[in-house]
Amino acid sequence: MNPITIPADKPIDFAAIGRLCIDLNANEINRPMEETMTFTKYVGGSPANITIGMARLGMKTAFVGKIADDQMGRFIANYLHKNGIDTAGVVTDRTGAVTGLAFTEIKSPTDCSILMYRDNAADLKLTAEEVREDIIAGAKVFLISGTALAQSPSREAVFQALQYARKHGAIIAFDLDYRPYTWISPEETAIYYNLAAEWCDIILGTREEFDMMERFEQNPERSDRITAAKWFNHSAKIVIIKHGKEGSIAYTPDGASHRAESYPAKVVKTFGAGDSYAAGFLYGIMQGWDIESSMAFGSAAACIVISSHSCSDAMPTVPQVEDYIRRCERGEITAT
Amino acid sequence: MNPITIPADKPIDFAAIGRLCIDLNANEINRPMEETMTFTKYVGGSPANITIGMARLGMKTAFVGKIADDQMGRFIANYLHKNGIDTAGVVTDRTGAVTGLAFTEIKSPTDCSILMYRDNAADLKLTAEEVREDIIAGAKVFLISGTALAQSPSREAVFQALQYARKHGAIIAFDLDYRPYTWISPEETAIYYNLAAEWCDIILGTREEFDMMERFEQNPERSDRITAAKWFNHSAKIVIIKHGKEGSIAYTPDGASHRAESYPAKVVKTFGAGDSYAAGFLYGIMQGWDIESSMAFGSAAACIVISSHSCSDAMPTVPQVEDYIRRCERGEITAT
Amino acid sequence: MNPITIPADKPIDFAAIGRLCIDLNANEINRPMEETMTFTKYVGGSPANITIGMARLGMKTAFVGKIADDQMGRFIANYLHKNGIDTAGVVTDRTGAVTGLAFTEIKSPTDCSILMYRDNAADLKLTAEEVREDIIAGAKVFLISGTALAQSPSREAVFQALQYARKHGAIIAFDLDYRPYTWISPEETAIYYNLAAEWCDIILGTREEFDMMERFEQNPERSDRITAAKWFNHSAKIVIIKHGKEGSIAYTPDGASHRAESYPAKVVKTFGAGDSYAAGFLYGIMQGWDIESSMAFGSAAACIVISSHSCSDAMPTVPQVEDYIRRCERGEITAT
Amino acid sequence: MNPITIPADKPIDFAAIGRLCIDLNANEINRPMEETMTFTKYVGGSPANITIGMARLGMKTAFVGKIADDQMGRFIANYLHKNGIDTAGVVTDRTGAVTGLAFTEIKSPTDCSILMYRDNAADLKLTAEEVREDIIAGAKVFLISGTALAQSPSREAVFQALQYARKHGAIIAFDLDYRPYTWISPEETAIYYNLAAEWCDIILGTREEFDMMERFEQNPERSDRITAAKWFNHSAKIVIIKHGKEGSIAYTPDGASHRAESYPAKVVKTFGAGDSYAAGFLYGIMQGWDIESSMAFGSAAACIVISSHSCSDAMPTVPQVEDYIRRCERGEITAT
Repeated sequence: MNPITIPADKPIDFAAIGRLCIDLNANEINRPMEETMTFTKYVGGSPANITIGMARLGMKTAFVGKIADDQMGRFIANYLHKNGIDTAGVVTDRTGAVTGLAFTEIKSPTDCSILMYRDNAADLKLTAEEVREDIIAGAKVFLISGTALAQSPSREAVFQALQYARKHGAIIAFDLDYRPYTWISPEETAIYYNLAAEWCDIILGTREEFDMMERFEQNPERSDRITAAKWFNHSAKIVIIKHGKEGSIAYTPDGASHRAESYPAKVVKTFGAGDSYAAGFLYGIMQGWDIESSMAFGSAAACIVISSHSCSDAMPTVPQVEDYIRRCERGEITAT
Repeated sequence: MNPITIPADKPIDFAAIGRLCIDLNANEINRPMEETMTFTKYVGGSPANITIGMARLGMKTAFVGKIADDQMGRFIANYLHKNGIDTAGVVTDRTGAVTGLAFTEIKSPTDCSILMYRDNAADLKLTAEEVREDIIAGAKVFLISGTALAQSPSREAVFQALQYARKHGAIIAFDLDYRPYTWISPEETAIYYNLAAEWCDIILGTREEFDMMERFEQNPERSDRITAAKWFNHSAKIVIIKHGKEGSIAYTPDGASHRAESYPAKVVKTFGAGDSYAAGFLYGIMQGWDIESSMAFGSAAACIVISSHSCSDAMPTVPQVEDYIRRCERGEITAT
Repeated sequence: MNPITIPADKPIDFAAIGRLCIDLNANEINRPMEETMTFTKYVGGSPANITIGMARLGMKTAFVGKIADDQMGRFIANYLHKNGIDTAGVVTDRTGAVTGLAFTEIKSPTDCSILMYRDNAADLKLTAEEVREDIIAGAKVFLISGTALAQSPSREAVFQALQYARKHGAIIAFDLDYRPYTWISPEETAIYYNLAAEWCDIILGTREEFDMMERFEQNPERSDRITAAKWFNHSAKIVIIKHGKEGSIAYTPDGASHRAESYPAKVVKTFGAGDSYAAGFLYGIMQGWDIESSMAFGSAAACIVISSHSCSDAMPTVPQVEDYIRRCERGEITAT
Repeated sequence: MNPITIPADKPIDFAAIGRLCIDLNANEINRPMEETMTFTKYVGGSPANITIGMARLGMKTAFVGKIADDQMGRFIANYLHKNGIDTAGVVTDRTGAVTGLAFTEIKSPTDCSILMYRDNAADLKLTAEEVREDIIAGAKVFLISGTALAQSPSREAVFQALQYARKHGAIIAFDLDYRPYTWISPEETAIYYNLAAEWCDIILGTREEFDMMERFEQNPERSDRITAAKWFNHSAKIVIIKHGKEGSIAYTPDGASHRAESYPAKVVKTFGAGDSYAAGFLYGIMQGWDIESSMAFGSAAACIVISSHSCSDAMPTVPQVEDYIRRCERGEITAT
C-alpha cells in the first residue's frame, strides 16, 4: 500500500514541465575533459530524462516546455516524439535563445562533473501563457523540477502549471534538482522552492537540497524527520530524502520511514542516477505498489543508467529492470 | 462584530513592508504638468502612506523597507521617525540605487495623473535576508503592498516576510496597489499576486485589480461575489472590492456583503484616497468595530486626504476624522 | 586673431548633440537637501545650456537629441523652441524612457552638489540613425558633450554625428563634461573620450577631466602643456584647461598659452559656470575675436549665471554680458 | 615589392587580439546537424586560427585574449602553447564566463553553417586594462578581428590595443570577420568598424562586410575601388576585398589592383578558408613578397584547410603550402 491515490479517467499517465537540454558526453572517459577530443550528443535535463524514463516503462507521457529554434531544439523534439512522448506542449522559442548544454566530464566512476551552458537557454523562456492547461488537466501525475524555477519567465510558467495541476486534481511530484549556477542566491532559491513545495504530494531531493530549502529555518541537526514533517503540514504524502551511497529514506504522514534494498552496479558515471530513480519510483507508486517496492524498482533502474554511457538513452524498460533485479538476486552483478 | 481576531500581547500594532518614495506634488495645479514650475516634496508610497496614517490614528507602527543612500532617502527616514514609526527595519541601499519619485499632475480634481521614476529604485532592492523576523513577529497586523512584488529581490523579501507573518500569527492585509509600469506583463503580475493573496486575511483592491488577478481564470461577468469566494477557500476573512465613485463592498466568508455610507468632500485631487481609506478601515477593524463602521471611518479619512494637497502629510488623527464625520452629518461639508 | 576659421555660407551658427534634462533647483538654499521642501523646474544638461546660451547671444542654433514622451520631455522641447532653437533634430523616445533629472543642493555658495537621475534616461537612447545629417551639415560650429558618450546607443550617435561634422567641415567643439555615475569605469571613459577628441578643433575641460583621459598615458606631473600638445598632433586648434578658481588656460598649436582676466561675482551657486563660459567663449571665437577676449567674455557670462538661481534660464544676452563687464570695470561688482 | 615596410628589431613577428573559442565539428558530415551524433573539439575563432596559421608558417607569435576558467579554456591555452604561441597575454576570466562554442554543420561541401554559443563568452570580457602594452610593443604585425569589437569591455580592449599598436609603430591588420549575432544592429557595427579601420594598414574583408561598413555612406554600385579609396585617405596601404568563388582583389594607394591565380581543391567544407588565406597572405607580405605572390600563397593555404575536417588543426606549414602549389601546377589536384 502507498499513501497516493492516482486519479483515474485521465488520458495521460505522466506529464512534466521544465528543462530540455543537450548532454554532450565525453567519449574518451576516465580523464579530464581537457584531454577529451570527441563528444556524443543526447537529450538531457532532469524532467526530460524522467519523462523518457516513464515512457520507456510504458506510461503514456507528455511534456510541457520550450526548445530553441535550431538544430539542437529540433533534435530534442524528434527524440521525445520517437519515444512516444506527446510534444503538443513543447513550444519553440522565437527570440534567438539557445539550447542549454551539459558537457560531462568523467574522470573516474566516482569523480564526475558537468560543464553547463545555461545562458540564454530556451527552456527558461517558457511563459505562463504558453503552458497548456489541457495537457496538465489530462495528466494523472504532474512533475515539476527545481531548475525551471530558476529564472523568469519559466518560474512563472511553473507556478501557473501548479495552479492548473491543483485545480484539476493531478498528483504533483517535485524533483528538487537544485543547480546553483542559474540562481542568484541560495536565499532566492529557498523562497521559490518552499512556495512550490507547499502544493506538492511527492517531494524528492538530496539532504543538501533540503538544507538549502531550510536556509531561513531552524533544523540545526539537519533532521530528515523534521524536514519531512514540515511538508506534511501542507500537501505532501511522501517525502524522499536521498543520502547518496547511504541510500534514500521515504517519509509518510503516518510517521513511518521507509528504506529499500539497494543493488550493486558496475558504475561508469553517476549522472542520471536521480532521474532514473525518480522514474522507477513513480512508476511503482502509479502501479499501486508499496513504497519499499517502488523504491527498489527505482534503485534498479538507476543502476542500469549509471552502468552505461548516456542518461536519457539508457532509461530502461520494465523487463530490463526486472531482469536486472533478478540478476542481482542471482549474484550475477557485483559492484565495480 | 467583525471576523478578524487581533492577536493580543504583541508590542507593535501595525507593520508594513514595501515602497518608500518621494511624491513631488505640483504647486500650481489645475493645469498640465508642462506648465507647472514648482513642486513640493512629500514622503509617498502606498504602504508608507498607510503606515503614516496608522501612526496618526495612534497605532504603534513599524516599517520594513529600503531607502537610497542619498538626501531623499534620509528625508524619508527622518519623516517616518518624526511620525513615531519604528524604522529599525528600514535598511539603506549601498548599490547606488535612487529614491523612487512620483510627480503628480492635477489637471482638475477628477483628472489626475502620476509621472513615475521607478528605475533602479532603492525600495525594490530589499532582500529576503534583510527582512527582520523580530519586527514581523512583534506585529499584530502586517500589511503587504503589491508594488513590492514587482521585482526581485523585493519580491522574495515580501514572500519571506509573509512566511514570518504566517509563522508568528499576524493578521495579514494585502493592499493590491497594482502599478503596471514596474511589471513585465499582466500574466506575471497575476501569478505573484495570487501566490501572495492565498496567505492573506484581508484583501483590499479595485475591481480592475481583481480583474488582473483573474487573468488565467473564468469570471466573465467580473462578479465580486465569485472573486471574493475564491479567497475564502484560502485564508481570507474580509475581501474589499472598490468601485471608485460607486463605493466599496466588503465580503465575508459567511456570504454577507457590507457597504458603508459615503461622505461628501471638496476634492483637490484623488491621490491618496485608497491609502487613507485602508488606514481608517484597518484602524476600525483593530478596534473591534463592525465592518460597516470601519468602512465609514475609512471613507471619512479618505475625504480629508483628497481635500488637501498632500497624501502622507494630510493623514488625519482620530479627532480629525470624528470631527469630519460630525461636520458631514451636520451638513457643513458638501461635495465639490 | 584666433586659430579657428569659421566656415561661411552655412545656415546654422551653432548646433549641439547630447543631454537634455530637467534641473530641479532647491528653492530653500544654503541648507542640506533633506531640509529643502520645494524645487523649481528648469531645462538642463550641459549641451542644452550651452545651446540656450548661444541662442541668447543671438546665434542661430539647432539641437540634436532625444526627449522622453512625457510632460518633462514636452516642457524641454517647448522651452528650446521658445528660445529660438531649431528642434527638428530632437526626436521623441517611444520605449518608455524618462527625462533625466538633476536635483541641486546648495549648502553654501561653495558647497553645491547634484543628485542625478540618469537610469533609463531618454537622451541616452538617441541612435545613430536618428542623427540628422542635414542639420550637422548646415552648422558652422558643432558641439559634443562627454555625457552623451556614456552609453549606447547615444555613444554611437555621437560618433556618427562626428563623422557627419568632419565630412561637412564643421568646426567641432568638445565640452568634456565628465559625470562618473553613468560610466562603467574610468578606463572605459578614457577610451571613448580619446577616440572622440582626435577629431575635435576645440577641447574644453577641467584638469581633472584631462587627467581621466590620460589614464593609460604618461603625464605624471599633470602638465597642461603636455596635455595640450597631444591634441595638436590630431585636429585641435585650441585646448582650454580649467583650473577652477585659478582660472583657465588656453593653448594653441603655435606653442602659446593664453589667460584672461577674471571678474568678481556675488556667487549663489557654482552650477552652470562651465556651460555659460563655453557659450561666451565660443561666441567670441565665432566673432573672430582673439582668444583672450573670447575667454574674458566667457568669464563674464559665467559670473552672471553663478549669481542667479538657475542655469539655462539665466544665460545672458550680449548686452547683459557687456554691461556686466562694464560694471566690473567700474568696480560696481565685488566678490561675495 | 609591396607597400608595407615591416618594422625590424622587434621580438615578435605577429600578435593578434580577440576571439578564442571551441569549434565542435560534426564527425558525421553531409547531413543536417539533427542527424549528427558526435562532434570533435578544436580550438577556433578567427584571430586564433590566423595566429595558429602564422605559427605553423614559422613566425614568432603571441596572443592577447581571455579564456574561461574551465576545461575548455584550459584546453585552448594548452593548444596555443603547444603550437609555440606566446600566451603571456591570455588572461583567465574570474566572473563565471564560458568558452564560446561553434557547432559546425556540413550538409554538403557548399552548404555549411554554424550554430554559435556566444552568450557570456569569456573572450568578450577582456578589458582595456588587461591588454599588455609590452606584447603589442614587441610585435611587428598586430591583427585585430571584428568580432572582438562586438561588445564591451572587449570593444574597449581593442581600441586600447590599437592605441598601443599605433604608438609603437606596428603594422596593423584588420580581419573584418563580421558575425551579426553578437551585435545589436548593423548601424552599431558600422560605426565601430569604421572607427577601428581608420588606423589600420591592411584591411581584409568580403564585399558584404564592406557593404555593412558603408551603411551610412554613398556607394550605391558597391564599387570596390570607391571602398578601397576611402581607406587610403586614412592609414591603409592594402585593402583586400573578397568575392567568394570569384576570387579576391587587393587595392593599393597607387591606384593599382591585384589579383592572384587560384588553385583547385577537394572541398570538405568552407570554414576556415578566410583565416588560412589571411595567414598565408600576411606571411608573404612579411617576407617582402609582392602582393600577387602573397595572395597566391594565401589561396593555397586556404585550399589545404578547406580540404580537411578542422580549421585550426589543419593550418599548413610552408613546405605543405609549397608542395600543394607544385602539385596543382603538375595537375595532380583537381576540384571536387
